Amino acid sequence: MGAAILSGLLTEILIPVAAVVGIVFALVQWLLVSKVRLSPEKATGSRDGVSDYLIEEEEGLNDHNVVVKCAEIQSAISEGATSFLFTEYQYVGIFMVAFAVLIFLFLGSVEGFSTKAQPCTYSKDKYCKPALANAGFSTISFLLGAITSLVSGFLGMKIATYANARTTLEARKGVGKAFITAFRSGAVMGFLLAANGLLVLYIAINLFKLYYGDDWEGLFESITGYGLGGSSMALFGRVGGGIYTKAADVGADLVGKVERNIPEDDPRNPAVIADNVGDNVGDIAGMGSDLFGSYAESSCAALVVASISSFGVNHDFTAMCYPLLISSMGIIVCLITTLFATDFFEIKVVKEIEPALKKQLIISTALMTIGIAIISWIALPSTFTIFSFGEQKKVKNWELFFCVAIGLWAGLVIGFVTEYFTSNAYSPVQDVADSCRTGAATNVIFGLALGYKSVIIPIFAIAVSIFVSFSLAAMYGIAVAALGMLSTIATGLAIDAYGPISDNAGGIAEMAGMSHRIRERTDALDAAGNTTAAIGKGFAIGSAALVSLALFGAFVSRAAISTVDVLTPKVFIGLIVGAMLPYWFSAMTMKSVGSAALKMVEEVRRQFNTIPGLMEGTTKPDYATCVKISTDASIKEMIPPGALVMLTPLIVGTFFGVETLSGVLAGSLVSGVQIAISASNTGGAWDNAKKYIEAGASEHARSLGPKGSDPHKAAVIGDTIGDPLKDTSGPSLNILIKLMAVESLVFAPFFATHGGLLFKIF
Amino acid sequence: MGAAILSGLLTEILIPVAAVVGIVFALVQWLLVSKVRLSPEKATGSRDGVSDYLIEEEEGLNDHNVVVKCAEIQSAISEGATSFLFTEYQYVGIFMVAFAVLIFLFLGSVEGFSTKAQPCTYSKDKYCKPALANAGFSTISFLLGAITSLVSGFLGMKIATYANARTTLEARKGVGKAFITAFRSGAVMGFLLAANGLLVLYIAINLFKLYYGDDWEGLFESITGYGLGGSSMALFGRVGGGIYTKAADVGADLVGKVERNIPEDDPRNPAVIADNVGDNVGDIAGMGSDLFGSYAESSCAALVVASISSFGVNHDFTAMCYPLLISSMGIIVCLITTLFATDFFEIKVVKEIEPALKKQLIISTALMTIGIAIISWIALPSTFTIFSFGEQKKVKNWELFFCVAIGLWAGLVIGFVTEYFTSNAYSPVQDVADSCRTGAATNVIFGLALGYKSVIIPIFAIAVSIFVSFSLAAMYGIAVAALGMLSTIATGLAIDAYGPISDNAGGIAEMAGMSHRIRERTDALDAAGNTTAAIGKGFAIGSAALVSLALFGAFVSRAAISTVDVLTPKVFIGLIVGAMLPYWFSAMTMKSVGSAALKMVEEVRRQFNTIPGLMEGTTKPDYATCVKISTDASIKEMIPPGALVMLTPLIVGTFFGVETLSGVLAGSLVSGVQIAISASNTGGAWDNAKKYIEAGASEHARSLGPKGSDPHKAAVIGDTIGDPLKDTSGPSLNILIKLMAVESLVFAPFFATHGGLLFKIF
Repeated sequence: MGAAILSGLLTEILIPVAAVVGIVFALVQWLLVSKVRLSPEKATGSRDGVSDYLIEEEEGLNDHNVVVKCAEIQSAISEGATSFLFTEYQYVGIFMVAFAVLIFLFLGSVEGFSTKAQPCTYSKDKYCKPALANAGFSTISFLLGAITSLVSGFLGMKIATYANARTTLEARKGVGKAFITAFRSGAVMGFLLAANGLLVLYIAINLFKLYYGDDWEGLFESITGYGLGGSSMALFGRVGGGIYTKAADVGADLVGKVERNIPEDDPRNPAVIADNVGDNVGDIAGMGSDLFGSYAESSCAALVVASISSFGVNHDFTAMCYPLLISSMGIIVCLITTLFATDFFEIKVVKEIEPALKKQLIISTALMTIGIAIISWIALPSTFTIFSFGEQKKVKNWELFFCVAIGLWAGLVIGFVTEYFTSNAYSPVQDVADSCRTGAATNVIFGLALGYKSVIIPIFAIAVSIFVSFSLAAMYGIAVAALGMLSTIATGLAIDAYGPISDNAGGIAEMAGMSHRIRERTDALDAAGNTTAAIGKGFAIGSAALVSLALFGAFVSRAAISTVDVLTPKVFIGLIVGAMLPYWFSAMTMKSVGSAALKMVEEVRRQFNTIPGLMEGTTKPDYATCVKISTDASIKEMIPPGALVMLTPLIVGTFFGVETLSGVLAGSLVSGVQIAISASNTGGAWDNAKKYIEAGASEHARSLGPKGSDPHKAAVIGDTIGDPLKDTSGPSLNILIKLMAVESLVFAPFFATHGGLLFKIF
Repeated sequence: MGAAILSGLLTEILIPVAAVVGIVFALVQWLLVSKVRLSPEKATGSRDGVSDYLIEEEEGLNDHNVVVKCAEIQSAISEGATSFLFTEYQYVGIFMVAFAVLIFLFLGSVEGFSTKAQPCTYSKDKYCKPALANAGFSTISFLLGAITSLVSGFLGMKIATYANARTTLEARKGVGKAFITAFRSGAVMGFLLAANGLLVLYIAINLFKLYYGDDWEGLFESITGYGLGGSSMALFGRVGGGIYTKAADVGADLVGKVERNIPEDDPRNPAVIADNVGDNVGDIAGMGSDLFGSYAESSCAALVVASISSFGVNHDFTAMCYPLLISSMGIIVCLITTLFATDFFEIKVVKEIEPALKKQLIISTALMTIGIAIISWIALPSTFTIFSFGEQKKVKNWELFFCVAIGLWAGLVIGFVTEYFTSNAYSPVQDVADSCRTGAATNVIFGLALGYKSVIIPIFAIAVSIFVSFSLAAMYGIAVAALGMLSTIATGLAIDAYGPISDNAGGIAEMAGMSHRIRERTDALDAAGNTTAAIGKGFAIGSAALVSLALFGAFVSRAAISTVDVLTPKVFIGLIVGAMLPYWFSAMTMKSVGSAALKMVEEVRRQFNTIPGLMEGTTKPDYATCVKISTDASIKEMIPPGALVMLTPLIVGTFFGVETLSGVLAGSLVSGVQIAISASNTGGAWDNAKKYIEAGASEHARSLGPKGSDPHKAAVIGDTIGDPLKDTSGPSLNILIKLMAVESLVFAPFFATHGGLLFKIF
């Protein structure tokens, strides 16, 4: 077997150091962004650097009014977002406490709240800590995960709202400057989240160890609560934020763009502030919580499998921490990658934006491959055994390297396929744009077909990763493959957050009445942002698929099932009902967006009809009422889909038992991943087809435009339909599949002991 | 154990007698329909009966021109449909021969084309016929199934085109008369198909028995080719017909209704004949082949499982024929049920149409429950054993009654849920119509959400049927549950075919320039038809789910796999890729419809722009070119999706082996059933939301209308998007899941012997 090259002590040092480096880097980026002043005295912090950019046209740099207006709008958006998140957190807080109590009661009841030590599940000859202790620590780690997730989302939102007006102001100096500001802000969020997630997890493990000692099985089982906490907050963040943002967006577009024929983000539109707030609470805070959840879950899944493998049994701390070391390396790699976008190269023209973002993906993946090799070499024994459904499987360190690497590269493949299907530089989106010639109906038909088609290659990529990593290292292989896909999360989040920031920057430019030229620049940033947002969603769903499978595997092991046989009726009905859940869930979220949007439309129409001078721009609309409509709708409407996801595993596990629950998990996983990918790509494609027509960059695009032409109107309809698909129901499905899996894992001891009531009775 | 009450001889007599009764009944109905003369001498065969209906307004009964015009249009539609089907059959014929050769070679190669008897698969001590004989007979039964399927579809089309103008003419006498004509014609098709399918299968079994003697295992394995033949023809019928009808429909609507503002089915629209031909080749011929396929497959699945159970081992012919006896009873029950619609009651006003059709479902289900009880009592021994994955499971006859009955009643539940979600008498469709107020985008969002939601109860109904029937009688239980759902197929087909016949009748009324009042009557028939068509699709998909599972079970038994464990990578990658296939398939079919519709739009626009006097109605359009566009597009475009479905099991089985193939089958089943239900209900709801606004039957509906208002335009867009969903991609998915399962079953011996090449190499 042989021990790892890296000593336990060094591991103890390296992980927090990497996390701290990530946080410091994020702060430096934040400092650089903050140099763009939002007060009218001076447009930039230092006049020295500016002269370099004078080659690009500068506009109204000294127009104090514009700066003041931008600052005003930004603070309105920031206040709206903050107030919504606080309202959301109040409700979510109640849920959090209630669910924490539930966890404690369910898990405590496994051994009848006994305080005596029990024989371990996997090594019957040893004694482990009592179930009651596991219940307590699981509850604590649940709360820890939940709070970290909330903080992640909140910080992301704060950074984004801090950055958007600054991006707008920088856009006056040229597209390159604006790009760097938006990207740096995205990086702040990416690094803070990645480092923070790692640090909290690391500290929790070390504190729990004080109690658990050498009972690693119990320790890492308790730690899975961290993943559950992270993901359950992400669910509410994604669903609540998703409903908020799309109710506002759809409502604003339907009256503003379609009926009143005023541009997007026009300050006369009463829903415009709500729309911009929505980008920050949905796309930023929701997505931040989501990816943090994936990261936390894949780490937990890997750790819990490792704890019952040779790493755990032999108490090899370094090898045990392999998942955390991969994440630490990821932070360093992403740090270097970021410099390529912000310092090593410089963007000068619009068409360089997308390649620059794409390069980020390629560079981080290439560097990370080397990083993984190094970690696998120094942190793992040359051979070791991995627990695989009751058996121990021999694995070599280079085999584990392949598992992580294949996840990483599968992520890149998914990213590129997503880009191909959603960027308007390629034929799929152009075909969709072209179909607008014959109206909205063909646009929708082509868009749906595009989304369906875009599923094929990602699914094959996921299938290959699963097959290879499972064959090499069973469920541990899958867990580290997921971690591999997420190892460059800091870069992924940076380019993902870049999208909504640019979108908002454009909105602020419009609202502040800045020139057409500046709006064109922010639009170009935004178009690239649509694609990167789709790529981010691709990563999120790809990693969610792997994570869920890993969690599913861990659940099965913990629930002591040795096979999940499709040919038994208990499993099969679980499978088919599980495959239905994403539809049920999507029906709820889409209907919610639809109803909330209808309310918003009525309010916006009412304001246009009753407030004199609104259309002429002489009176200000009542933004606050629209913000309130979105807030109330999203808080009210997030409860039923949230309940569906949170209660399903509890009900199925308690009444139908672990076999049926296994079926439900497998069914929702294989079905949900398809809908999620197709929904977010269809939506992204429609959005960019519209932008393609609006931008009119080619002969073909111009033949479909200009804004206001019939094909453009058809494209706007497609874009509006895509909104709830790509920003509400699609991305929430990631969380559905992950959350049900991690919840099952946490409650597995209870289900295994007391579950299947219905079958016990009959 | 005890023997069945019914003797073998009586069984031999009863089955063909029931089939013949069905055929005779169909002929009688046809005779009654044919009494409506399409020649101008006299409007009806006998003047005696007509006086009864004079209470309703008669219009233009003696207008010779109208009758001549109707006859002309009818023959144009009939010719178009016949010529398309012949073209389709040429291509399909080539495929059929090639695939027959493939079957023979693959199955023959299992024992290296040896002509020696081999030990039986399930009773190793006995000798069974050589694999070469099974290959030969499987090929023959494949051809038999394929030809029966083609004949079924063709006959259905002939009947429908024979009936549509007659329905139009009867509409002059009132809605009741028109209803009866349309319904009788549907019954002709329903009874011919059900009886024909039963008779051919029965004859084939008896002929094969001459060779096989007491090798029932080989006999019924060979018979499964019948199901494969039926379904593979159904695939091409559904896909080809579906693309044909929707290319024409979408193309006609986009230019006619949206751009030129002329009504649906206006004779000035060049695509109008193609559109009406499409209804007959897609909805009638395609659907006929589809349901015939389901029926053939569920019978085959039940027979093959029975042959290795105690029925087969003990050579209990009556019990063995239980599935066929159920179908025989079904014909008799449906015959009685039909009389309730045509003779016992009479429809006088529009609002009685939907309840009358609904009553058909309830009556047939109630009567059939008694029928099943009788058959289960007289045809089955009181206890017997059923083969269940290597074991024999004890089953009582009343348990089998429950299996069939639960399938039957689950079908009714699915039917009612479908009706609730697609009829404009209830709130879901009214909500969708209401959302048209804010434009096409909200209409689409609400429609998609409705489709997703409509999946929930059907899936629970299917899950409960699976659980109960599987628990009672393993895979045999599932197979007979499917058969139970299909036992009232004659009635199901009758009310299903009624839809397109009414649709066409309306088209003919419009084209013949008949009065507004008559068009209103046919529209009312058609609106009910949309709902029944959706119900029919619900049945088709529900039964397809059960059938596929039964076939999957039979495949697993035949491939000698004892578990399909989701926790093995081979199975899991199959599961996730299988769940992706319906998306891939839908992407192809929807894109095909879209592209073909674009071509159609161009042609229709060209004709409107270049043919002088077309818009004024003084010149006739060039119908033939539009027919040709639809024909060419559908023939060309049906090949890739067809290849996807037919080749996947062969490739997966040969290269990845039976475990992965099991995963693919389970994955495509649980994922495909959801998309199929949601797609057909979304489409049906959009169609009826549009009709709801057009009919303006309530205060609410009138506030959305009239035709040409903005909400109505939004509803037309939804209707157009729904066309490919509900008539092309949705219903084709039934066949995808069934066909892959039955193909795997037929090729199981080959895969079990030579499959999994890729894993054997590495």
